[in-house]
Amino acid sequence: MNIYHLTQNKILKDVSDSLSWYNEDNSYFILCLTKEIQMLQPIFHFDSNTIEECLTFDENIRFDSFENYDFISLNYFYFLDDKTFFEEINLYIGSNYIILVGQPKSTIIDEIEKYITQKINMMENPANELNRIYFWIFDRILSHFFSSLEHLEDKLQRLELDIIKNVDKKQFVEINKIRMQINQLKKYLRPLLYIGDQFLVNENGFINPNHLKYFKNIDIRMNKLYDYLSSLKEMGDQLLYLYESVLTSQTNDIVTRLTILALFFAPLTLITGIYGMNFEYMPELSWKYGYPLSLGIMFLLTLILYVIFKRKKWL
Amino acid sequence: MNIYHLTQNKILKDVSDSLSWYNEDNSYFILCLTKEIQMLQPIFHFDSNTIEECLTFDENIRFDSFENYDFISLNYFYFLDDKTFFEEINLYIGSNYIILVGQPKSTIIDEIEKYITQKINMMENPANELNRIYFWIFDRILSHFFSSLEHLEDKLQRLELDIIKNVDKKQFVEINKIRMQINQLKKYLRPLLYIGDQFLVNENGFINPNHLKYFKNIDIRMNKLYDYLSSLKEMGDQLLYLYESVLTSQTNDIVTRLTILALFFAPLTLITGIYGMNFEYMPELSWKYGYPLSLGIMFLLTLILYVIFKRKKWL
Amino acid sequence: MNIYHLTQNKILKDVSDSLSWYNEDNSYFILCLTKEIQMLQPIFHFDSNTIEECLTFDENIRFDSFENYDFISLNYFYFLDDKTFFEEINLYIGSNYIILVGQPKSTIIDEIEKYITQKINMMENPANELNRIYFWIFDRILSHFFSSLEHLEDKLQRLELDIIKNVDKKQFVEINKIRMQINQLKKYLRPLLYIGDQFLVNENGFINPNHLKYFKNIDIRMNKLYDYLSSLKEMGDQLLYLYESVLTSQTNDIVTRLTILALFFAPLTLITGIYGMNFEYMPELSWKYGYPLSLGIMFLLTLILYVIFKRKKWL
Amino acid sequence: MNIYHLTQNKILKDVSDSLSWYNEDNSYFILCLTKEIQMLQPIFHFDSNTIEECLTFDENIRFDSFENYDFISLNYFYFLDDKTFFEEINLYIGSNYIILVGQPKSTIIDEIEKYITQKINMMENPANELNRIYFWIFDRILSHFFSSLEHLEDKLQRLELDIIKNVDKKQFVEINKIRMQINQLKKYLRPLLYIGDQFLVNENGFINPNHLKYFKNIDIRMNKLYDYLSSLKEMGDQLLYLYESVLTSQTNDIVTRLTILALFFAPLTLITGIYGMNFEYMPELSWKYGYPLSLGIMFLLTLILYVIFKRKKWL
Amino acid sequence: MNIYHLTQNKILKDVSDSLSWYNEDNSYFILCLTKEIQMLQPIFHFDSNTIEECLTFDENIRFDSFENYDFISLNYFYFLDDKTFFEEINLYIGSNYIILVGQPKSTIIDEIEKYITQKINMMENPANELNRIYFWIFDRILSHFFSSLEHLEDKLQRLELDIIKNVDKKQFVEINKIRMQINQLKKYLRPLLYIGDQFLVNENGFINPNHLKYFKNIDIRMNKLYDYLSSLKEMGDQLLYLYESVLTSQTNDIVTRLTILALFFAPLTLITGIYGMNFEYMPELSWKYGYPLSLGIMFLLTLILYVIFKRKKWL
Ligand SMILES: [Mg+2]
Ligand SMILES: [Mg+2]
Ligand SMILES: [Mg+2]
Ligand SMILES: [Mg+2]
Ligand SMILES: [Mg+2]
Ligand SMILES: [Mg+2]
Ligand SMILES: [Mg+2]
Ligand SMILES: [Mg+2]
Ligand SMILES: [Mg+2]
Ligand SMILES: [Mg+2]
Ligand SMILES: [Mg+2]
Ligand SMILES: [Mg+2]
Ligand SMILES: [Mg+2]
Ligand SMILES: [Mg+2]
Ligand SMILES: [Mg+2]
Ligand SMILES: [Mg+2]
Ligand SMILES: [Mg+2]
Ligand SMILES: [Mg+2]
Ligand SMILES: [Mg+2]
Ligand SMILES: [Mg+2]
Ligand SMILES: [Mg+2]
Ligand SMILES: [Mg+2]
Ligand SMILES: [Mg+2]
Ligand SMILES: [Mg+2]
Ligand SMILES: [Mg+2]
Ligand SMILES: [Mg+2]
Ligand SMILES: [Mg+2]
Ligand SMILES: [Mg+2]
Ligand SMILES: [Mg+2]
Ligand SMILES: [Mg+2]
Ligand SMILES: [Mg+2]
Repeated sequence: MNIYHLTQNKILKDVSDSLSWYNEDNSYFILCLTKEIQMLQPIFHFDSNTIEECLTFDENIRFDSFENYDFISLNYFYFLDDKTFFEEINLYIGSNYIILVGQPKSTIIDEIEKYITQKINMMENPANELNRIYFWIFDRILSHFFSSLEHLEDKLQRLELDIIKNVDKKQFVEINKIRMQINQLKKYLRPLLYIGDQFLVNENGFINPNHLKYFKNIDIRMNKLYDYLSSLKEMGDQLLYLYESVLTSQTNDIVTRLTILALFFAPLTLITGIYGMNFEYMPELSWKYGYPLSLGIMFLLTLILYVIFKRKKWL
Repeated sequence: MNIYHLTQNKILKDVSDSLSWYNEDNSYFILCLTKEIQMLQPIFHFDSNTIEECLTFDENIRFDSFENYDFISLNYFYFLDDKTFFEEINLYIGSNYIILVGQPKSTIIDEIEKYITQKINMMENPANELNRIYFWIFDRILSHFFSSLEHLEDKLQRLELDIIKNVDKKQFVEINKIRMQINQLKKYLRPLLYIGDQFLVNENGFINPNHLKYFKNIDIRMNKLYDYLSSLKEMGDQLLYLYESVLTSQTNDIVTRLTILALFFAPLTLITGIYGMNFEYMPELSWKYGYPLSLGIMFLLTLILYVIFKRKKWL
Repeated sequence: MNIYHLTQNKILKDVSDSLSWYNEDNSYFILCLTKEIQMLQPIFHFDSNTIEECLTFDENIRFDSFENYDFISLNYFYFLDDKTFFEEINLYIGSNYIILVGQPKSTIIDEIEKYITQKINMMENPANELNRIYFWIFDRILSHFFSSLEHLEDKLQRLELDIIKNVDKKQFVEINKIRMQINQLKKYLRPLLYIGDQFLVNENGFINPNHLKYFKNIDIRMNKLYDYLSSLKEMGDQLLYLYESVLTSQTNDIVTRLTILALFFAPLTLITGIYGMNFEYMPELSWKYGYPLSLGIMFLLTLILYVIFKRKKWL
Repeated sequence: MNIYHLTQNKILKDVSDSLSWYNEDNSYFILCLTKEIQMLQPIFHFDSNTIEECLTFDENIRFDSFENYDFISLNYFYFLDDKTFFEEINLYIGSNYIILVGQPKSTIIDEIEKYITQKINMMENPANELNRIYFWIFDRILSHFFSSLEHLEDKLQRLELDIIKNVDKKQFVEINKIRMQINQLKKYLRPLLYIGDQFLVNENGFINPNHLKYFKNIDIRMNKLYDYLSSLKEMGDQLLYLYESVLTSQTNDIVTRLTILALFFAPLTLITGIYGMNFEYMPELSWKYGYPLSLGIMFLLTLILYVIFKRKKWL
Repeated sequence: MNIYHLTQNKILKDVSDSLSWYNEDNSYFILCLTKEIQMLQPIFHFDSNTIEECLTFDENIRFDSFENYDFISLNYFYFLDDKTFFEEINLYIGSNYIILVGQPKSTIIDEIEKYITQKINMMENPANELNRIYFWIFDRILSHFFSSLEHLEDKLQRLELDIIKNVDKKQFVEINKIRMQINQLKKYLRPLLYIGDQFLVNENGFINPNHLKYFKNIDIRMNKLYDYLSSLKEMGDQLLYLYESVLTSQTNDIVTRLTILALFFAPLTLITGIYGMNFEYMPELSWKYGYPLSLGIMFLLTLILYVIFKRKKWL
């Protein structure tokens, strides 16, 4: 647990056994692990449902306004070896503190901490800047979300190029793996839209009206994130159609060629049929060169058909 | 009927036989069953059409502004065993009261009551917070609507995965069952958009201008709900196309294979046709090994075709 | 012609021969038939083009701002026996009067009159409420438009269900009848968007700035009406695809089955071809049971193919 | 060249040889032909690029803000005998003048002039109304654009009806002629969106803030014009799909029927194949009625197949 | 490096060896090459990450707010011989300076410089106009982006016309080349949307509130640019479908014709089969004109089929 004492602009360490470090008149930014959240309960007395939400991983995104704090629970995702992993991030926002609760070794938590400490170091009076810390947390999370989606877009575009160059039945599985991944993300990220709207309602008034523009920006970017994801969903659908259409046109080609090949045999078979009839009076049958002539005619017919089809560009 | 006397912050019970509990200077939040609404008529003298609307179930969503109260009628839906059930919720909003009229044993009414009592208990002066009660009612209803749609989205996504893995004609029925369910919801929920707009018109002025942001939030969420439903409708349409396209590509595969198989027989049949001709002078016919040789040629031809088709990846 | 004298809150009757009832300081709401409009000309001196517009039915929707009045001409539609009927509604809006010009026995004019008289009766000082009368006229018209579109949506949804259950070539005609109906409505209603925008421009200033919110609401609902219609258009297009796709998949089924059936005959015909060859030395031909054996082989082959196709689920 | 002296409310004629009519304190609305623009240069000293733009026809739409005037160049289009014609309209807007530069015999210029003179005649002090003249010019142009698009929509709807009633390969050419026309318009009109936005920026401040609402209306209508065109583009695409789908379903019908017909011959040919085999012991061959019996069986088989296919509704 | 000393309204040259030209009370617009940026470091002490960003080309678009300057990095693209080239443009915006960092011989940098010097020459007090310079830079870049996309739209429209006139398999490659180009641009330009939003947040307050309208205009045009690109993407997809549909309908035509041709042979082959049967009692076989009669019947049958198919418009 890292406690940033913003009023005194220092980091408190090893405060775990005492509560004396906390004072309502000071401002704090606290980064803590899920298992450490209960150590803060003697000070903040958070709702027990929210504590439970911090301790267990679940799918839900929440924004709850309590009497003197807001609680936000959302899911961060990242890709590793083409799989999507989710981790939960929880936030308590009070009038004089922000508590960020995350899992150990989380890269996003580390990055947020690094980014915010850098910013705090540049500020003269960080105690007044709780709102901007609040903003930066979502700014960082959204940046990560956007670059993850860009990664997905890259994969879709590479696959598209691949299909056009050389369609292959293995691509069907790959397209659908990405489409399912997008579906999963869509379900997880849709409630973010709701959180963006909640910022603007600002029920507990923790956002300074002068700072509302930052949160409008967050709200807009959340909408854009979802729109981006929706456009990826559409790209995935389009890819499936492209795949299908390339494959279908290939199949059509084969069927057309086969039908043409079959047509070569029809007149030949008719000729053999004719000379296989058992009429008593068929002069050709007794001709000496009847047989080779009939074969010759068949060969000629094949040639003529070949030339005709070639000219009509059917071959 | 539960009457929350907000000014005195207590719950009135067993008031059914007297009207003395009501005073225009006090604020009330009243939860009553459809059959109990007529007990309140001696006090409020509501329009008889609205009373009738409360007593009977119907499809319509209404927002009517009367001289000193607004009346809202909407339909709540929930899923049970893959069927959609609807129940009607009616609301009277006056300057000093909110009356919520619902059916007995309604889970949504129970949840709204539980949620609002919890909130009332946390408030210092609930009499001033009629607008927020108004907001919470719609907040709860919308939350339920959203999670119902999420449930539907889950079903669509599971079905999609299922189609990709193993297409089956039974899925056609299932897809269309969900699509019809979405159609039904779309028809029921579309008029909600109109109610969201009516909030913002605020004809009777029951919404405090300071609280208008809450109702803007409700309006936005109603629009999002409808957009969400529209996107589910599109997902359903997409699913139908996916189903059709997977099935078509399977059928195409079969037809291509059959056409290829048929092509194997064409040259063989031609050969038998040739040696079935009745020419007098056909030297091969009198060869001793003519017959086995012709069979051998047929076999060879089949083999050659097989190799050619294999190489062209037609098989 | 019904003249509502709003300042004195009474209805004037039989005023046709005299103009003395009119006074610029009073407010009036006048309902008149198309043929009666010229009786008002001695008082109001309206532009002759607008008079002509009132007297003849045409397709155009207009909003014209004159020096001291606005003129609006729009088309109302209703369905009767699955046909669309249009009737023209014209409006003159001045600073102290609203004149609604409609056709005799028009249900929409009757409903507007009934609704507004009800509202006027509830108002203390109707002379100040000209803007709200203006709003109610459009409110009623839009409500009717919406329920007509809902009726159309119902028809589309029933047809969809019908196609899924049992596709039939007669449905093609029905789908296109509705699509053409939507096309016609789309053309008629699109200019409404333009009128909604004109309200907000409020060139003649007849709309009190405090009442602008009502007309924003009308503008938004006009946009929604058009969006609704556009979504019905899309539903119609989707229905056509659904119809086509269900029919195509049925046809594909038939063709696949036929191709399979044809394949049963190919090997059998080859066998008859082989034993129809005229080689001198074909031992099987002189076997006593050669013929029944060949028939037996053919039968067996058919059976084997049947089993193979059944296993591959091609049958 | 027609010069409207708005301050003195009169039209100046025959001013071509003198510049004395111009005075910076007066307001002017000037209609001039492209070739006359240079006569105004001694007074206004416009940028030479803009003069060149007026003198030559080109594809570009421009909005340039100079130090004391704005220059707008746009393209008007109209349909004649199903072809699209373009003509350029140029505008100089200064603080005390509007100069409209157009081609001779232009119907749109004539209509604008007629409309504006009518309006000027109704105004008490036209010198203050330069902004409204500015607005009316675009109002007229946009009205014409909209009715041209309505004409195009009519053509698309008639073609749609035609395709449904009786599909014909000539319609493919017609659909694509309209689609290309829409493409061309889309390219010409897209930059209008940019001009609408420039109005709202109002860089030179020529638009009175009180009149900004008029230009917001123009901006919105330009966006709607483009949206309308986009929806026509989509209708054109839909029409192509409809055409294709009606044609495909017709082709599918033919192929299905042909496949069924072909299937009638398969068993008959098999029978002739069987009795064409050369087995020594084939009792049927020596039956007296063997031949007519076999023909009878063939006939019966055809009949049975016909009944089966009829029942399965394959015929 | 060109330094525009806006306060003194002159251009500083050869300042590379001294820093004395800089004074915080003056305003500057500086155009410098990527390699010259480090010469400015002794004055401005920019963040080292931003310096590195200027020195190397990369895909990312950035907008970073530092304590007393904003840093923007974006990618400019242009087409040359049907290939897309990218070049990076970087911007430092302080309260009294704008530094534009670009590559040598960049046409966009040259154009921006030319445009802005022209504007500066027209201004009385350029030192107050830093915001408008800021606006003009983006105005120029966006104009170029738009005309590049118009170029792409032209190519798509020409290709569409080409496909309709004469479909050819080479077009498939061309369509996909453009589609991939659009995909690449979409990925590069999407983050522009984010920059437009950052302008409106105006975190460092470098944008004068009176000038915010210019940046709203930039934000709107960035959104339009992306929408335009998205519509090009859709046009590309549509083109692929058009190509496929024209090709498919051509293939269908061929297959239908072939199937019809095949059907001509079926009854003929049946007749030869019948007279190839070996029944002892077949009277026709011993008829003198049996053989020519059978040929005649075959010929007649072909003729009849031809007439029937012609009438049914199957040929
Ligand atoms: Mg949790
Ligand atoms: Mg959670
Ligand atoms: Mg939710
Ligand atoms: Mg939002
Ligand atoms: Mg989709
Ligand atoms: Mg009811
Ligand atoms: Mg109801
Ligand atoms: Mg409604
Ligand atoms: Mg709304
Ligand atoms: Mg749809
Ligand atoms: Mg298809
Ligand atoms: Mg008329
Ligand atoms: Mg009309
Ligand atoms: Mg119009
Ligand atoms: Mg509007
Ligand atoms: Mg459409
Ligand atoms: Mg579609
Ligand atoms: Mg020009
Ligand atoms: Mg031009
Ligand atoms: Mg442009
Ligand atoms: Mg605009
Ligand atoms: Mg399109
Ligand atoms: Mg399709
Ligand atoms: Mg198709
Ligand atoms: Mg770089
Ligand atoms: Mg960069
Ligand atoms: Mg980004
Ligand atoms: Mg933006
Ligand atoms: Mg598309
Ligand atoms: Mg797309
Ligand atoms: Mg499609």
